[in-house]
Parts: sequence; structure tokens; C-alpha cells
Amino acid sequence: MDTRTGLPVVGMVGGGQLARMTHQAAIALGQSLRVLSESPDDSAALVAADVRIGTHTDLAALREFAKGCDAVTFDHEHVPTGHIAVLAAEGVKIYPGADAIRYAQDKRQMRERLTALGAPVPRWRPVTSAEDIIAFAASGPTGSAPDARAVASEHAIDSSVQAAGSSERAAGVAPGEGWPVVAKAVRGGYDGRGVWMLDGPDAAAELVATGTELIVEERVPLRRELAALVARSPFGQVAAYPVVETVQRDGICVEVLAPAPGLSEALAVEAQQLAIDLANALGVVGLLAVELFETASGIVVNELAMRPHNSGHWTIEGARTSQFEQHLRAVLDYPMGETALTAPAVVMANVLGGEPGGMSIDERLHHLFAADPGARVHLYGKQVRPGRKIGHVTVLGDDMTAVRARAARAARWLQEGKE
Amino acid sequence: MDTRTGLPVVGMVGGGQLARMTHQAAIALGQSLRVLSESPDDSAALVAADVRIGTHTDLAALREFAKGCDAVTFDHEHVPTGHIAVLAAEGVKIYPGADAIRYAQDKRQMRERLTALGAPVPRWRPVTSAEDIIAFAASGPTGSAPDARAVASEHAIDSSVQAAGSSERAAGVAPGEGWPVVAKAVRGGYDGRGVWMLDGPDAAAELVATGTELIVEERVPLRRELAALVARSPFGQVAAYPVVETVQRDGICVEVLAPAPGLSEALAVEAQQLAIDLANALGVVGLLAVELFETASGIVVNELAMRPHNSGHWTIEGARTSQFEQHLRAVLDYPMGETALTAPAVVMANVLGGEPGGMSIDERLHHLFAADPGARVHLYGKQVRPGRKIGHVTVLGDDMTAVRARAARAARWLQEGKE
Repeated sequence: MDTRTGLPVVGMVGGGQLARMTHQAAIALGQSLRVLSESPDDSAALVAADVRIGTHTDLAALREFAKGCDAVTFDHEHVPTGHIAVLAAEGVKIYPGADAIRYAQDKRQMRERLTALGAPVPRWRPVTSAEDIIAFAASGPTGSAPDARAVASEHAIDSSVQAAGSSERAAGVAPGEGWPVVAKAVRGGYDGRGVWMLDGPDAAAELVATGTELIVEERVPLRRELAALVARSPFGQVAAYPVVETVQRDGICVEVLAPAPGLSEALAVEAQQLAIDLANALGVVGLLAVELFETASGIVVNELAMRPHNSGHWTIEGARTSQFEQHLRAVLDYPMGETALTAPAVVMANVLGGEPGGMSIDERLHHLFAADPGARVHLYGKQVRPGRKIGHVTVLGDDMTAVRARAARAARWLQEGKE
Repeated sequence: MDTRTGLPVVGMVGGGQLARMTHQAAIALGQSLRVLSESPDDSAALVAADVRIGTHTDLAALREFAKGCDAVTFDHEHVPTGHIAVLAAEGVKIYPGADAIRYAQDKRQMRERLTALGAPVPRWRPVTSAEDIIAFAASGPTGSAPDARAVASEHAIDSSVQAAGSSERAAGVAPGEGWPVVAKAVRGGYDGRGVWMLDGPDAAAELVATGTELIVEERVPLRRELAALVARSPFGQVAAYPVVETVQRDGICVEVLAPAPGLSEALAVEAQQLAIDLANALGVVGLLAVELFETASGIVVNELAMRPHNSGHWTIEGARTSQFEQHLRAVLDYPMGETALTAPAVVMANVLGGEPGGMSIDERLHHLFAADPGARVHLYGKQVRPGRKIGHVTVLGDDMTAVRARAARAARWLQEGKE
């Protein structure tokens, strides 16, 4: 409790843009987010009043940081579960707890638990050798062969049989062999890192040789990606946001469409219910983002995140309660806020750092504001580096196609400095 | 320019809730508001990363504060115009400039200038003696007599002729005498302070004896109060928000209804055009709030404010661009943002500090969140004192009557800790 205000103090471990935007939400609730930041130049450290410099792997730093906090939570999922458990045992209200966050840290544990819970997941297995991967590929049911057109375009150069393939299912790989398969690092991947598309035994052997702990999964024949975002409080209240479509490029989320266009009410409710069930089953406190594949036969869980998530940035203006405020409400055990959309169509587009040179970011912002006075801009105060997420824009309106075009154009102005 | 981010630095003089909410807006634009605060416990100082402690009347402190700022602006109107002029002469981009802000600081200059511009104002004059006030009252046209019912209820105890009055125009004062008149301190009033309703010569003599520099005005027979908010950039672009109704109690704004219910399109446009014309004529850079009286015969200017204003807090969720972001865009000469409403009906209710005792503010917040998950709360981090503005709530919806009831209930929960 902050004795100056009579209101609680939440500490967030990590000083990235998620902490930055959580601080904005904290201000409205009469709070001031306490941030544990690696550097005073981190995104959140630039704007928060109560910044402690320290590393999330340092138990002593975490202990000191937690003193006087009514709740401690995370900007990322890299705090060792052992540290979280120690702090919790010492009486710190730290959310999500070690028993929950391990499923967001460790893809093998996540897949095992989801399989045990009967949640829809891709066919998968842990692997330690190229032979394991080859066996997994060989065991692939022909019925779950990947979308051959996507495979063909990605692997055309390496694939000697490419020219021979003409049927929808046979380009690039012989049916039944099960290649390509998706390999994932068990720990530490994000934004497309730690995920590899393996098109045969050689690629498998090469990856295994790096010593990375791996699981492999079938390549899901997906129509598109969705995300279901929920928040759960210690009391057990769960609030679900409308299901969104996420659009990825090179493994990085570039666009989020809310609500997911053309999604049937039944599938939307199924996705929300799945996220609610997982939040309850895993004992999540705070936000849970469930990244989903939509396939011809339904939804499949791709990844879990237990923190404010890129797929929920649209909620700042697009939902009655932003994910950042919702996360604070959840970890403080306040009643959850309303999740309804504020407009029929909301699109968030990420702004990635462009090539150096040309207009400054400030000049780009001038141009964007002149081009679209209604675009909502969020810049994270980060140095521009090619491909780095430096901000996002959100556009709201009545027509998804028009809103999407505006959002893409706004992001392009900030990213490339041109129309 | 902040070399870490490539984005501008705005300095705001004063650490109140306006600076606090401006900092929230600055964060989205990739900035971090620099705040000149009297105390480290001020509302904005509790949440901003870049806080300098100092007093707005100290030229040396202002000079030091302005170093490295791309623009300097104000949370209040108390910085001496001489200091503003000195800084501007030294090359500081400080907005609004001395030539504009003097009309927000000095009611006599404001009335003189508005009269010269032909803007609609109440009948008024500067006064230095009780005789001046008596003469002003005596010169009052009978046609502009005040709403007698309101006068009667406010002055029933003092008014010896009250019981005799029965006609709409004659209760409490004889028609033609022009009492009561409104006396205003030329400088320093706010939230009802510095405004007196004088019901006769004795009250006039008593007020003059305090030595306060005064003007007097007719008591305008108002239907209700309105506010027109615009923002103007140095380039000269002006953006106007929808005109709102403001509801006062004891001289303090308690509610703002956006858009003003039942306001004719013609009168709304007239009010917006008046605010635009005044912003241009006075050379305002940043926000200009024009407080208006609506009478049977049109609108009359009550007061001017040149900063984010209580009548614009609803814009945080209720308009596409908040007044706080708009003010930053204006003082940085960015193109202005869209001002459209985000919902058909938006109501902001101020939260005043209640009596001590009972539930803590945090417990009240729990109850409010349970009672209305859609209410948007803004707490300023201030110690609760009876009558002090400690926050506000905003409710959005389709029906003004329902939205207004929800906002009042939400404010009551935070203020009184009960339904």
C-alpha cells in the first residue's frame, strides 16, 4: 500500500513495452507501477516514477524489489520458477505463480499438460536425436499432411522433387512421410525465434547438433491464427475478451483483427471457453493469452502466454477495459472489467523498426498524423532497429476492410516513412 | 529531443492531475513528460519519470526546467506572464504565450478583450468601491433580471422582502435594482473560489473592504452551462470537440455530459465557431476551454481556460483523441487528432473527497468495480480531503439518461462508499 495515496503498489519484473503500457493503466487506478528494469533506458524505465535496476534472475534483487509491493507480476516469462516459488513461500503475492507460469516457460511441460487435460493440440513429441525426428515424421498420418502450396513456396530451392509435384498434397514431399515437421526450442523462443520448419533428415540432424532441447510437432494445416485472451483473479473470476485473428509475417505478429472476421459464434465461444478452462486448470492469475490455429476441423492450441500480450494491444482503445488494466485488476484481486468491444471493427498493426536513414521517427509521426488524424499511435521509446517492435497503431471503425487498410497504412508511415 | 528515443520532450509546469493525465498521453506518443512540481508527492510527480522540484514563480527554476525541452506548457495558469515572456524571448517554445495566457489569468483583461472582439459576454465593469457596485446594480436593465427562483433559494435568509415576492421576476429584489450582481476576483479564482453573489450594498461594501481587485457582472439568467473545447497549433490548425454540458454544484463542476443533450446543431456550431475564433484572435497555442452560459437568447462567455480542462476529461475514452494528447500535439505543432465521439452518450462525473472514516478508497474501488464493470475510473493519487477533486469516472453508452445515472452512481461509490 502506498501510504501517500492509500492505493496498492504493483511491481512488474521487466521494463519492456508491456510494463510501459501497464504503467499507463496503473496511473488511472491511482497507482504508480514499480518496475524492475535491466537498464534505465528500457521502455518502461523511461516513463515510470518507481524504477529499480536489477536482473530477473537475481533472487536477492527480486526479494528487495518485492518489499512493499501488494502484488508482483511480470513483463516477460523469464523469471526462474524456483525464484517465484521462494518469494511466494515468503509471503509475496506473485502472479502468475510458479505452478502456472512453467507452462508458459516450457513448451514440453505445456504440451504434456494440455494433452493430459484433453485440450486440442497438434500431434507432438519430445525429441533428443535426429532419429527421433525422422521417426516422428515417418509416423505422420497421411491425413494430416501439410498445406503443400505453402511448403512448396518455402522450400522450392531445396526440394529436388518439387518440379514433379502437381497434386495439392504432393508438392515437395511424398505423402505419408510427414515432412516438414515443426521443431521448437523447449525454452526461450519468442517472435518466431526458437521455431524451425524442418524439411527432411538433414535439417533435423543439423538442428539437433546445436544441443537445443526440442519438441517436434506436426505442421498444422491452418486456415489462420486466432487468439483468445482471458484474465483470472485469485478469487477465481475470469473475464474473456472477444476472440481475435492474428496475422504473422516471418513468425512475428504484424496485425490483430478484433473481432476475428467471419468467425462463427460457436467457434468463438469454444475458443473463449477453452481459454477459461485452461486459466482455471492451470491456476493462472492475471492474463492468459491462448494462441490458436484455426483448421478445417476446429481449433488447436499453439502457444500460451501469461502476461499482457501483443494480441491484446487493441484493447487499449478497442475494449471497454484494456488488457493492461485487466491484468492489474486480476493480480490485485479487484473485480474484472468489462471486455466488450468499443467499435464494430478494431485493427492493431505492429510497427517494426525500418531500415536506418531517411525520415526520423518524429517526422514520420508528423506525416502519419496529417494522413490519418484518427489513428491511435503507441510508441515504446525504443531505439529503431530493423525488425524490432518499436510501437503499434490501432484504428477503429465500422468496416473491417477499411479499418485494416488504414491500420496497415499507418504502420507503414511509421515503419517506412512513406505512403 | 530525447536522444534515447528520437522523440520530443515536453515540459509541463505544475504537478497536478492535469500533468498526471498528460503524462499518460505522452507515454503513447513515445515521450516522457517532464514535470515541474512543488512537491514530490504531487499527483503527477508520483507517476512521472522526469520530475524537477521547483516553484512556478521562480524564474531561475523555470529557466533550468526549460533546458532541453522542445516545448514548455502549463498544468495551471499561475505562471507570471513576465516569466513566460522572458523565456520566449530566450528562445523557449512556451505555450500558450504570455500574450494569450493573460486573458486566462486576468478576468478584467479577458472581459475587455472579449468585449472589443464583439464576443457575447455578460454586462460587466471593473469596480474599486461599493459605490461602483451599487451604481452597476442600479444601471441593470430590468430586462436582464436574474432567475428569481434561484436567487430566492440562495438568499432566502438574508432577504427581508423574500416573502413578498411572488412573481417570477421579483422575488428577493425589486426589479430594476439589478441585484444580485456577481463579483469576481480579477485574478486567482477557481472552482467557485473568487466568485461572490452580492445581494445588496452591505455585501458589496464587505467584499470591497477585503481589498480584492474586482469586476462585477450581471447575473446571467442561464438555462444551463456549456463548454466548447478547441486546440490550436502554432501552424494555426484548430480542432474543435463536440460541445458539452457542464453541471456545477457549489461552483464546482460535478458532471460533464457529451454531447450536450438537446443542443441544437446551430447553437453547437455557433459555440464551436466562437471558441475557434477566440483561439485565433487570442493566439492560443494548446487547448482553449470556453465556459459558456446558455440563455434564452443564446450563448454568453463565462470563463476561458488555456490548458487541459475538467470539462474535457471525458475525451480520454469518449473522443477519438483525448484532450491531453491533443494538447501535446498542439504545443509540438503536430497535426491535430480526430475529435469525434466514440459513443452516442458520454458522462464524466468528478469524484470529490468525502468525509473521513468508513471504507478506504481502495475498498470503495473494489465495490465500484463489482457494481459497474464498465465504469472507467481515474484516480489522481491525492490525499482525500472533503470537497477536493480526487478523481473522476467516465461512463459511455447509447442512452444519456442511463449513462448519467451510472456515472453518478459510480462517483457516489468512490465518494461516499455506498450505493
